[in-house]
Amino acid sequence: MNKGKFIVVEGIEGAGKSTICNVIVDILSEKKIKSIITREPGGTPLAEQLRKLIKQGVEGDKLIPKAELLMIYAARIQLLDTVIQPTLAKGIWVVGDRHNLSSYVYQGAGRQIELNLIKTLSHQIIGDFKPDLTIYLDVTPEIGITRVCKRGSLDLIEQESLCFFKRVRELYLHIVANDNSMRLIDATQPLQQVITLLRITLINWLSGQII
Amino acid sequence: MNKGKFIVVEGIEGAGKSTICNVIVDILSEKKIKSIITREPGGTPLAEQLRKLIKQGVEGDKLIPKAELLMIYAARIQLLDTVIQPTLAKGIWVVGDRHNLSSYVYQGAGRQIELNLIKTLSHQIIGDFKPDLTIYLDVTPEIGITRVCKRGSLDLIEQESLCFFKRVRELYLHIVANDNSMRLIDATQPLQQVITLLRITLINWLSGQII
Ligand SMILES: Nc1ncnc2c1ncn2[C@@H]1O[C@H](COP(=O)(O)OP(=O)(O)OP(=O)(O)O)[C@@H](O)[C@H]1O
Ligand SMILES: Nc1ncnc2c1ncn2[C@@H]1O[C@H](COP(=O)(O)OP(=O)(O)OP(=O)(O)O)[C@@H](O)[C@H]1O
Ligand SMILES: [Mg+2]
Ligand SMILES: [Mg+2]
Repeated sequence: MNKGKFIVVEGIEGAGKSTICNVIVDILSEKKIKSIITREPGGTPLAEQLRKLIKQGVEGDKLIPKAELLMIYAARIQLLDTVIQPTLAKGIWVVGDRHNLSSYVYQGAGRQIELNLIKTLSHQIIGDFKPDLTIYLDVTPEIGITRVCKRGSLDLIEQESLCFFKRVRELYLHIVANDNSMRLIDATQPLQQVITLLRITLINWLSGQII
Repeated sequence: MNKGKFIVVEGIEGAGKSTICNVIVDILSEKKIKSIITREPGGTPLAEQLRKLIKQGVEGDKLIPKAELLMIYAARIQLLDTVIQPTLAKGIWVVGDRHNLSSYVYQGAGRQIELNLIKTLSHQIIGDFKPDLTIYLDVTPEIGITRVCKRGSLDLIEQESLCFFKRVRELYLHIVANDNSMRLIDATQPLQQVITLLRITLINWLSGQII
């Protein structure tokens, strides 16, 4: 009965998702809540192989959008069934570095696959499973990509155009504004301020939860 | 306007699909019809990587049925969009060593994923694209697997139980009996007789086509 909660961090490249996932684990730990971090696409040996194919591509064979979408859902259901669900069942919380919302914004707004197709697929594969809380870190693509560029060579998604990320961000903003399990944090601010905002948001949300 | 035709060979492991695909190419070539062979899952550099993950698995991470299904459709749409469709558009025929029907029987009857889920997914991803002719090579699992065992070590699907293949064959038989673009050939017979039957079936079908 003591089920863990699933908190997801979303945002474009360089928004600070991976950094913030670690901060969330620390805050939860202060509250004596055990949690693990998962990332998508990836998080299981099989899903990490799929991540590699998606992010690095295969020489001489440009991945088409629908194939990418299916590979992402394959990785997601593998992670959900073999890691996320069993962990939550044990009462351990899961902090997800991306989850289903990423497919709507990247494959939908970004790659321009019809949202209805994604919605149906999502429902067929993961049913009505949904994060308890989603933290959306909002940055402009200009800022996000600049942060990522400092990290070295870019993967296939990071190489997408500014227009691509502008479409992605626009859909993020639209969805987050209309879903009360989601919180927007302005992540253009210095990291310390982002962490302060996150702490307030998380503590506030936790106080409303029956744990 | 001079569009190629898509002929698919189906059947369980060891039915003789790969052997018969080559025979079909030879017969078409006698009729001055140019054709290529594709195989599924696989047939493009990316799809072959997915094939490897499906057939060999990843250490310590058992592929769950829905993830397998999605990976197979990812490989299929990649092959369809980048190889099959462009080839047919040039007027070259394609001989497919497996295609969509395999997902119904293996992932549906074999892995016991609801057929409705597969049907919806199939429609969403490949639309109403369908082979012009399907040759189903019918053998009992006992005979098929015995042939395959002679080839050496078995992959993850070949290691499935006899019950698995019996369910697969049963659904093959049911679907083939109810679709007039499909022909059953008794492939338990010696190869030369199978080839003779195939030749009659193919020539007969070709005579009804406007080429
Ligand atoms: N608010 C911030 N201000 C300045 N730099 C930041 C901020 N947040 C994170 N960074 C830095 O930006 C870089 C990207 O951060 P991080 O890797 O956490 O982003 P991400 O959203 O996980 O990116 P990706 O989508 O590529 O995984 C890191 O070097 C990180 O230290
Ligand atoms: N009618 C037949 N009688 C006896 N042996 C056959 C017959 N057809 C094929 N074989 C042999 O059985 C083996 C399997 O044939 P083949 O590789 O063509 O089957 P397949 O359906 O492609 O199998 P797989 O699904 O594993 O790829 C080969 O060694 C082939 O020579
Ligand atoms: Mg990250
Ligand atoms: Mg074969």
